Amino acid sequence: MKVGFIGLGRMGRGMARRVLEGGHDLTVYDIVPEAAAELGAAGARVASSVAELCDGREAVATMLVEDRSVVEVACGDGGLCDSLPAGSVHLAMGTYGVGAIRTLEDAHAKAGQALVAAPVLGRPDLAAAGKLGIVAGGPPDAVERARPVLEWLGRRVFEAGSKPETATAIKLANNLALGAAIVAQGEAFSLVRKYGVDPQVLYDTMTDGLFSGAPAYSGYGKMMVEGTFDNVGSPVWVGIKDANLILAAADLARAPLPSLDVYRERLLGAIAHGDGDRDQAVLAREQARACGLE
Amino acid sequence: MKVGFIGLGRMGRGMARRVLEGGHDLTVYDIVPEAAAELGAAGARVASSVAELCDGREAVATMLVEDRSVVEVACGDGGLCDSLPAGSVHLAMGTYGVGAIRTLEDAHAKAGQALVAAPVLGRPDLAAAGKLGIVAGGPPDAVERARPVLEWLGRRVFEAGSKPETATAIKLANNLALGAAIVAQGEAFSLVRKYGVDPQVLYDTMTDGLFSGAPAYSGYGKMMVEGTFDNVGSPVWVGIKDANLILAAADLARAPLPSLDVYRERLLGAIAHGDGDRDQAVLAREQARACGLE
Amino acid sequence: MKVGFIGLGRMGRGMARRVLEGGHDLTVYDIVPEAAAELGAAGARVASSVAELCDGREAVATMLVEDRSVVEVACGDGGLCDSLPAGSVHLAMGTYGVGAIRTLEDAHAKAGQALVAAPVLGRPDLAAAGKLGIVAGGPPDAVERARPVLEWLGRRVFEAGSKPETATAIKLANNLALGAAIVAQGEAFSLVRKYGVDPQVLYDTMTDGLFSGAPAYSGYGKMMVEGTFDNVGSPVWVGIKDANLILAAADLARAPLPSLDVYRERLLGAIAHGDGDRDQAVLAREQARACGLE
Amino acid sequence: MKVGFIGLGRMGRGMARRVLEGGHDLTVYDIVPEAAAELGAAGARVASSVAELCDGREAVATMLVEDRSVVEVACGDGGLCDSLPAGSVHLAMGTYGVGAIRTLEDAHAKAGQALVAAPVLGRPDLAAAGKLGIVAGGPPDAVERARPVLEWLGRRVFEAGSKPETATAIKLANNLALGAAIVAQGEAFSLVRKYGVDPQVLYDTMTDGLFSGAPAYSGYGKMMVEGTFDNVGSPVWVGIKDANLILAAADLARAPLPSLDVYRERLLGAIAHGDGDRDQAVLAREQARACGLE
Repeated sequence: MKVGFIGLGRMGRGMARRVLEGGHDLTVYDIVPEAAAELGAAGARVASSVAELCDGREAVATMLVEDRSVVEVACGDGGLCDSLPAGSVHLAMGTYGVGAIRTLEDAHAKAGQALVAAPVLGRPDLAAAGKLGIVAGGPPDAVERARPVLEWLGRRVFEAGSKPETATAIKLANNLALGAAIVAQGEAFSLVRKYGVDPQVLYDTMTDGLFSGAPAYSGYGKMMVEGTFDNVGSPVWVGIKDANLILAAADLARAPLPSLDVYRERLLGAIAHGDGDRDQAVLAREQARACGLE
Repeated sequence: MKVGFIGLGRMGRGMARRVLEGGHDLTVYDIVPEAAAELGAAGARVASSVAELCDGREAVATMLVEDRSVVEVACGDGGLCDSLPAGSVHLAMGTYGVGAIRTLEDAHAKAGQALVAAPVLGRPDLAAAGKLGIVAGGPPDAVERARPVLEWLGRRVFEAGSKPETATAIKLANNLALGAAIVAQGEAFSLVRKYGVDPQVLYDTMTDGLFSGAPAYSGYGKMMVEGTFDNVGSPVWVGIKDANLILAAADLARAPLPSLDVYRERLLGAIAHGDGDRDQAVLAREQARACGLE
Repeated sequence: MKVGFIGLGRMGRGMARRVLEGGHDLTVYDIVPEAAAELGAAGARVASSVAELCDGREAVATMLVEDRSVVEVACGDGGLCDSLPAGSVHLAMGTYGVGAIRTLEDAHAKAGQALVAAPVLGRPDLAAAGKLGIVAGGPPDAVERARPVLEWLGRRVFEAGSKPETATAIKLANNLALGAAIVAQGEAFSLVRKYGVDPQVLYDTMTDGLFSGAPAYSGYGKMMVEGTFDNVGSPVWVGIKDANLILAAADLARAPLPSLDVYRERLLGAIAHGDGDRDQAVLAREQARACGLE
Repeated sequence: MKVGFIGLGRMGRGMARRVLEGGHDLTVYDIVPEAAAELGAAGARVASSVAELCDGREAVATMLVEDRSVVEVACGDGGLCDSLPAGSVHLAMGTYGVGAIRTLEDAHAKAGQALVAAPVLGRPDLAAAGKLGIVAGGPPDAVERARPVLEWLGRRVFEAGSKPETATAIKLANNLALGAAIVAQGEAFSLVRKYGVDPQVLYDTMTDGLFSGAPAYSGYGKMMVEGTFDNVGSPVWVGIKDANLILAAADLARAPLPSLDVYRERLLGAIAHGDGDRDQAVLAREQARACGLE
């Protein structure tokens, strides 16, 4: 199928390659020419603008970090709404807020196009291997049209509902649960440290029992035990960005979420203490600071 | 080995049977004669008092719900301290507080006996099958002496440290992480419900990804999706009992634990709304109440 | 002095009248013609646009509810930046966020004008009587030029600093302390109600002792005792608007503020339960709901 | 009237002197002989034991710090219950928990005596001047019998209800509101400091407006502005003791109190950072630590 891909960062690069490997006709664009050139070398057509990329595309996927970037790409002059053929689908695959998704949904509807929010679950290695989890929300017919590329990109596609924001809500709720799990592990490690316990024993106990098999515990807990937070998977500054998206979604929905507050405040504290670029596992150190342990 | 077992409730009954199956010489006692008689029929000697039970025992395990019960059984007139042979071991296998464990430790030391705190991880079915996780804390030689029965009762023995309270700290920290996970799932389900999402899709997303394989999510999340909280594994009233033990341990250690506060307050709210006897998964309903969803 | 006033709502109306009473040359503007006409009848010149209002003004005060309104009025086509004489002062007197104030500051600087943030403390009756507290932040010379009108409007002018956002920070910090005081009173009343105490006795105790004389307690506490929240001074929806401004200011500054979270969540809960238009004292009822008292 | 006074610490000393000044027949007792001797020099009869003190007393006031102390003095061998004449009144004037008060109430009832919980509001200087606020809870006839001494000790007597615990609930609720006010001021000062504001300006703004006249703000805020916490009125270690009494009262009543949690955690953090003996105003420094300001 004729696909466009915008946003070739750590995640997007691997996803775009995966689309190529699926035999799709791919055009790519990124504000960083080198990023696009790399995909060009791999066989993709490289567009010099969003407008040029849109030419004849059945679906265009965006994988951008900030809400304002995706809104600009979609709604700005010469953006997706101006340039995509009628009936084509915008796959918004980054983690965007409910407000941005509603803005995109309205703009594409006016332009006779469809928005499918399709945020992904997984890190770059899974992206490159086509093993992402994908949560898809949008008009069923649009989801159907995009299915070939979604199923090639993802290990599994979770269908959230016929409104794009349903997929956003699931992605944000999943991140809320993750944030709370990181914070709680940090508190658990601080508590046992106060009693002179080797953190490894708590790690073994947790990952062998109630939390066995869950990457949210085996991965973050391991970093907490080792006390090394510089091999960064998901940094604190991305955590606060996402936490603020969850907060805004909860605000719109009038949902008090006290666990989110605890997570947000620890993230802010970590940034205030200079750990903003470290992995979110560093919240264990922020918790230890609050306990007078560091 | 010559073993005594006190406290034949839902957990203790299966554990005591398991000790018998291990070919150990077992004497049992419970304040409820019927509970003891059942083990007698299975081949255990039934004592009519704690003092009588202690006769010639190398190790006595207690599996009681309340701190005050285990302190009374150990330190009361004719209790374990008065009646156990010198050199024998008290295996405190319930979830007790740091204060109670310190009281027992001192009392047994004065009496020439040893305390090993050995709280268990798992529910009655695992107990009966010898598949519990066991966290053991206490003097290494005492842990060694008790090892035959610990290894027969447990799938795995986690060695916390040479102070009994190290095992307590790990058990409480593990329960803290569990409580936070239950609360966060409740918040996640409330958030997606506000956006009209079928909770099953969030459940599938979470249990397929970051939280895959972890009973703390698959089990509690399932009850939250179904909205049925009356098939009770771990009730709210036990949750608040344990939350208060965690709080006391954090207080002694000067450890601020905000996730614990969020968990405790939801537990109190659930009890205030009449859900104290339901499974702790009902915290999802308490969260929904806070969101105006019920 | 030659003054303009934009935003003639409940607060602005009284403030503008007060400016007239001070003998100043006043031009007013409001998107609601009736509001402006009322001031016209009192002797003010009524402008038909922001641009017309700016003509020859030494200072223009804005008293608008939303950040986006004041940004539009100042930075939009024909707005204050386009229309005010060089050297004149924009007195931003509403409760605006740090982000909006920074936007205004830059825009006015580019236009050769000055921004003074001058948020007010007090309700409409105090506004009409010139008894407001005013916190002023901005370039000292601009504050000096605006002093005649500020001192006529206010009982007292608090000088925050030479950056407009310093005044914003003080206003938001003051509102944070107020929000926390409202929430804490709600919790205190719930606690004594659980023990069968007449709330009036708690009110008498608090307002006679540690909290004597403080309107934040005498006023809100009285409504809580009476349980009537429909005589609205400051509604919940304004509370959440301000709470989100405080949150954004704390986010920019990397300041974890747990009391703010407790306040925000109760506000969201109150809205979710249908109390969004009631006075913020209704947070006592929201607290009572959490306790199973309503 | 014939009065006994037990507990001659910083508060009790001044209260006992005040009783003497009222012309009452006073016998005193303290475990520290010097403390009692000082009152003896002032004209009080000094008893060598609680039992001796009780002889012929119509009312005995206790002003002790810990729950366990007052329970021991009342219920221990030769304590108040054993030694007071039938019909006499025990005035429990310290800040005790609901559990302890219920224990005392039952014990005195069995002994044919009455318990009146009469916790006081105010510091040593007010105590010595008879200017305390007193919250009285207990059987109306017992409160009447004790009224001469209560009115001489207090500026005002607040009648909470016919159960002693009603007075406890009011005292604890008042302390909860105070704790929340201290924490919120700390957060407010941290926020403005992040914006480069002189804390004095926030102090002036708050104490001139919504919080004018309230000692809870003028006193604690002043210490926060000066950043000196060693002139100790109410230390952190007393704060955590009282916070835990509030927590226990809320637990018994099933009342979730999130503001209490924020207060408790900051107190624990302050102790963990070595500020346990400083005035509770030091919570502002603990808050600043969380913001990376110290």
